[in-house]
Amino acid sequence: MGWAIALHGGAGDIPLSLAAERRQPREAALRHCLKVGVNALKAQKSPLDVVELVVRELENNPHYNAGRGSVLTREGTIEMEASIMDGNTKRCGAVSGLTTVVNPISLARLVMEKTPHIYLAFDGAERFAREQGIETVDSSHFITQENIERLKQAKEANRVQIDYTQPIQKDEKKETPTANGDSQIGTVGCVAVDSHGNLASATSTGGLVNKMVGRIGDTPIIGAGTYANNLCAVSATGKGEAIMRGTVARDVAALMEFKGLSLKEAAAYVVEECVPRGNVGLVAVSAKGEVTMAYNTTGMFRACATEDGYSEIAIWPSVQN
Amino acid sequence: MGWAIALHGGAGDIPLSLAAERRQPREAALRHCLKVGVNALKAQKSPLDVVELVVRELENNPHYNAGRGSVLTREGTIEMEASIMDGNTKRCGAVSGLTTVVNPISLARLVMEKTPHIYLAFDGAERFAREQGIETVDSSHFITQENIERLKQAKEANRVQIDYTQPIQKDEKKETPTANGDSQIGTVGCVAVDSHGNLASATSTGGLVNKMVGRIGDTPIIGAGTYANNLCAVSATGKGEAIMRGTVARDVAALMEFKGLSLKEAAAYVVEECVPRGNVGLVAVSAKGEVTMAYNTTGMFRACATEDGYSEIAIWPSVQN
Repeated sequence: MGWAIALHGGAGDIPLSLAAERRQPREAALRHCLKVGVNALKAQKSPLDVVELVVRELENNPHYNAGRGSVLTREGTIEMEASIMDGNTKRCGAVSGLTTVVNPISLARLVMEKTPHIYLAFDGAERFAREQGIETVDSSHFITQENIERLKQAKEANRVQIDYTQPIQKDEKKETPTANGDSQIGTVGCVAVDSHGNLASATSTGGLVNKMVGRIGDTPIIGAGTYANNLCAVSATGKGEAIMRGTVARDVAALMEFKGLSLKEAAAYVVEECVPRGNVGLVAVSAKGEVTMAYNTTGMFRACATEDGYSEIAIWPSVQN
Repeated sequence: MGWAIALHGGAGDIPLSLAAERRQPREAALRHCLKVGVNALKAQKSPLDVVELVVRELENNPHYNAGRGSVLTREGTIEMEASIMDGNTKRCGAVSGLTTVVNPISLARLVMEKTPHIYLAFDGAERFAREQGIETVDSSHFITQENIERLKQAKEANRVQIDYTQPIQKDEKKETPTANGDSQIGTVGCVAVDSHGNLASATSTGGLVNKMVGRIGDTPIIGAGTYANNLCAVSATGKGEAIMRGTVARDVAALMEFKGLSLKEAAAYVVEECVPRGNVGLVAVSAKGEVTMAYNTTGMFRACATEDGYSEIAIWPSVQN
């Protein structure tokens, strides 16, 4: 039994040929965020503080699809969402439809701590952000040139990129942000456990490129994108609709609780048996300090560390790294 | 194996002294809606059609907190939400933050059938409603004099009625809509199974009196307020935040799937062991045609029928009826 942490920056069809200039900044962010998280755990910060801190770092990084770097709706706007959950108390907070909040994960935590509710969305969530005095900026802060281009391509292809990790078909030869296969991958999340077995999970996203205005995905849904109890903490990523149908994060915990599976067995079962191939990845830690990072996509941006000295930063299956 | 149906109109602290003029219209609605559902099942309508039909009837009834009769936010506005799920395919649809849609449950079904998404909320959901040509009216249609009074009392008591089934403390002697204990009870839901074992679930609500603008509860959350798979269909009601934390609807199904419990055992376990007393009620049917209606509140407006001729319409525990 010791502390453990795992984080992800999205799962999807990530080609092994991913260009170095697209791979390296993401790897550097994983390395940086893992270090931030490990240092915080070593400094005895609570897992809830740790997962919020790490997800804030990932939200601030424009190379991931959360906070700055969020992908755009059909209207060219951003609608960010996030959730956070504490394992021991099952207290949780969630937000959707944010347009100006620099760190959605911190607003989710404020919903948990400062309201009688769990989940606030759209105008009401933005208003609550202002009441709380949390940092907000003009929406343009979040919008990257790359995401403007991604929306343009999605609109030209006339589709919601629900199969958002696939290259756009119409112009496969052209090297574009979407055509190189890493386009909308990038929901971020973090799970952590301290040496006393306290668990927490946090997840944040910009959603899907070209999504309908008002679309809510799995990320803010307790039990789908995020879950924690006294056994484990889970953060999922991938195709939101498949993850919602699969109640992925809760199912990992439920398999441990109701079927007696280990963390690794539970995560493997959900990823291999419950959600269609190509749709999901997750990171999870147990109260015992175990860690697992499972996915049924070609890759997942991920990193983890445990108190006994194990550490991993990877994108594709380990045998290929 | 045969068809079965169950529906609810909310669970909470319903006093046995509930005045006849408050009890009778709700009982009449339960009786009417049960008949509508049974007739639809007998006419070979799909369970998905049946649960939508029954929930529409309940939404149209001003004595329940869904559709017309929805309770009011802090601002005196209404924000309705609903979700629907088909068991075999796990297809589902959900909506939140509706202000003009006469039948939120039908918009949830359209989200399921006409979009690549599962869940639309607030302005985007309202816009989608207009695109689809579904019936909308001015918000004033949904607001009853009784709910204006409930909000006034909640504001005077300066609280969100998260413990919304309790009489307001400040003036217990006065007989008021809230003080007689049935105030905001009234989320509605229906589950159905046909004789082939096809399952569906639907839930609809106006939420909590005096809720913050933008608050989302358990009703639209797949796995919390609503869930269906190939084993069972579940619709929950009660204190939304407790139901979200407890992933109530999914847990009933997960206990059957992962632990081999029967429908009744699974529902009883969730209601008795997993959610604090006074917080939850649920109705559920299994693929085998079993039905259960479990709650840990003093009462739940409920009704059910099965193909073998069993039928029940009740508010309090059967021994007290």
